[in-house]
Amino acid sequence: MKVLVINAGSSSLKYQLIDMDNEAILAKGNCERIGIDKSSITHNANGKKYVTETPISNHTEAFMMVKDALTKGEGAVIADLSEISAIGHRVVQGGALFKQSVIVDKSVVDGIESLNPLAPLHNPAHIQGINAALDVFGKDVPEVVVFDTAFHSTMPEEAYIFAVPYEFYEKYQIRRYGFHGTSHRYVTARCLELLGRSGNPEGTKIISCHLGNGSSITAVKDGKVIDTSMGLTPLDGFMMGTRSGSLDPSVVTYIAEKEGLTPSEMDNLLNKKSGMLGISGVSSDDRDIGAAAEAGNERAILAHKMLEYQIKKFVGGYAASLNGCDAIIFTAGIGENQTAHREAVCEGLSYLGVKLDKEKNAAAKGIEMEISTPDSQVKVYVIPTNEEIVIARDTKKLVEELAK
Amino acid sequence: MKVLVINAGSSSLKYQLIDMDNEAILAKGNCERIGIDKSSITHNANGKKYVTETPISNHTEAFMMVKDALTKGEGAVIADLSEISAIGHRVVQGGALFKQSVIVDKSVVDGIESLNPLAPLHNPAHIQGINAALDVFGKDVPEVVVFDTAFHSTMPEEAYIFAVPYEFYEKYQIRRYGFHGTSHRYVTARCLELLGRSGNPEGTKIISCHLGNGSSITAVKDGKVIDTSMGLTPLDGFMMGTRSGSLDPSVVTYIAEKEGLTPSEMDNLLNKKSGMLGISGVSSDDRDIGAAAEAGNERAILAHKMLEYQIKKFVGGYAASLNGCDAIIFTAGIGENQTAHREAVCEGLSYLGVKLDKEKNAAAKGIEMEISTPDSQVKVYVIPTNEEIVIARDTKKLVEELAK
Repeated sequence: MKVLVINAGSSSLKYQLIDMDNEAILAKGNCERIGIDKSSITHNANGKKYVTETPISNHTEAFMMVKDALTKGEGAVIADLSEISAIGHRVVQGGALFKQSVIVDKSVVDGIESLNPLAPLHNPAHIQGINAALDVFGKDVPEVVVFDTAFHSTMPEEAYIFAVPYEFYEKYQIRRYGFHGTSHRYVTARCLELLGRSGNPEGTKIISCHLGNGSSITAVKDGKVIDTSMGLTPLDGFMMGTRSGSLDPSVVTYIAEKEGLTPSEMDNLLNKKSGMLGISGVSSDDRDIGAAAEAGNERAILAHKMLEYQIKKFVGGYAASLNGCDAIIFTAGIGENQTAHREAVCEGLSYLGVKLDKEKNAAAKGIEMEISTPDSQVKVYVIPTNEEIVIARDTKKLVEELAK
Repeated sequence: MKVLVINAGSSSLKYQLIDMDNEAILAKGNCERIGIDKSSITHNANGKKYVTETPISNHTEAFMMVKDALTKGEGAVIADLSEISAIGHRVVQGGALFKQSVIVDKSVVDGIESLNPLAPLHNPAHIQGINAALDVFGKDVPEVVVFDTAFHSTMPEEAYIFAVPYEFYEKYQIRRYGFHGTSHRYVTARCLELLGRSGNPEGTKIISCHLGNGSSITAVKDGKVIDTSMGLTPLDGFMMGTRSGSLDPSVVTYIAEKEGLTPSEMDNLLNKKSGMLGISGVSSDDRDIGAAAEAGNERAILAHKMLEYQIKKFVGGYAASLNGCDAIIFTAGIGENQTAHREAVCEGLSYLGVKLDKEKNAAAKGIEMEISTPDSQVKVYVIPTNEEIVIARDTKKLVEELAK
């Protein structure tokens, strides 16, 4: 069975075609600047990369481009669209409605749409992607949606309610939802395998650190999420590339007041100009900040110190949530590759029984590896994330169940 | 030496007269509703309480009332104002200017005034108190100011900088200052005595939980603060009687947007209508919430679960900041008296080696007591706070140095 995995943004469409017989990626790519000028499709297949600049005015046209890229010319990997058995879509916000992946029907689309106020940039784009796929593939190809929030739906109330007047939870569904759920789900499932606890996760205590341009940390007990750092939106938690993470709320009102900013301007400031970029003044990219820090830039050094300190504090907080910790996972761009951050974080966690093997840590770049010493009480792993494979597996499973 | 300790608010003036020869409280009281209708003075002395309703139009008149209460009638404890050697004032916000207590002079008053934007409700009232004391006591009675923020001035940069654009730190001095410093200082000094480490605090790791109507938790390493939960203002940290604590900033902008609230209206909502009151819908008072929870009120139960969970997470985070923990202190109204919260928090910290003695915990109400078991790796103490004695001691010390 071949599954097409789709991640539709407001002006982009990422795709991956996966052969589920061996979980091999047959092709992957991205349509960029949809509906804007200078749009293009980048297609990777057969060991080569094909970039085509061409007008793409909407998501349906983007799907037509994907279809052509997969079936025609040098980059073709299938003869015909009929080889694609199902499509799996990433959806950011499933709210309290969707606690697991589901086959798309009218009520599912309506449900995703009803959550637009909670994810105004993402959910409308996902719906465009779902409808465009229907236009191009037809209704006989089942579509499945996999939610970023779903893995976090097991959080208890005391972890997901914010201490603002309760009426805002009732009236606007303001609560902690959490994001990156598909990534946390993948790496914790893999971690349970590595711990030999796949079949019996009861009693396990895992802290999963997804550190990328957006970052979140999740506490997983018995294989189920009990808390996570992102909240109502992906702005919450600790500092990220351009996001502040959680704040003294008076910092928000103080800046808004002093600078005369509206709520949406404040939102923009805290989402796009804060975090590592706002502190370093150099870049939102951890590698650029690292280079500046090496060169002695004090604000770049500060940004790194803050990041490492905030990660350490979150891990410590979740160790309390879990009343202990068996394993810590590092994943995503920064988590998989930035060895210095892992070392700084782990050095401060020796009270938990964390002992890092510095050589292994230095060697673990983008590859799966246990980086703690054999006698470390807490296992520390680098586990490269793979959200697409989770989406493809869920899609395959639901489609097969549907066929029964 | 007798020292008068003053805590001046915008419409109140609390006082305590302390005989520093034996640190005995000779009298204490409060002028309320200054400059409003129905103002009054409550004076406690000689084992009795005297309440006088009388117009008090400003802080100078309040000081005149205090003078009369201390020197005249049944509640008199001194013959003459000349018996008072010095006055110690509590000041909430010392910013980055004041890292310790100082004798008041013109430049100090100017300094406190320059910090008004960071504490618009408090610092102007403190200045009124300082000036009114000068009016009534004259310039020969030295005045000392003791800052709520000073004990936190040892925090490293990575703990006090918020991950918003750095320019706001430079332009508006937006950073973590921390509050309740005088209380944290008192209880940690006492804790070091109990640990037998007063003279050599190096290597000690203490987490101090000041839990009252306002609450904060502080991480103290080598006797010095390395992090604290309150930030730019006392709104930060975890949920309190009516305050939210730190939040996903998008919760702030989302509510402001939906409800059409200005920054100062949002500030009011998050300071006065959130926290335990906002969740329980019952009260901001922990005892009322406890009664409602006992009666089965689900939102009161939720409020308590959230509070205990958030305290536990903060303690865990600071255990990571400190890379371990030797002692946990509970102080202030809730910390000294609400045994169930202490038990719930400590039960979740067994991974740190915390073992609570439940009988001792149940017995420790408003009295100093070690409430952990003898074999607990982490000592847990209830230590009643005493900010006034710290202010009086600092005042005495500085005045004596001045006289040399």
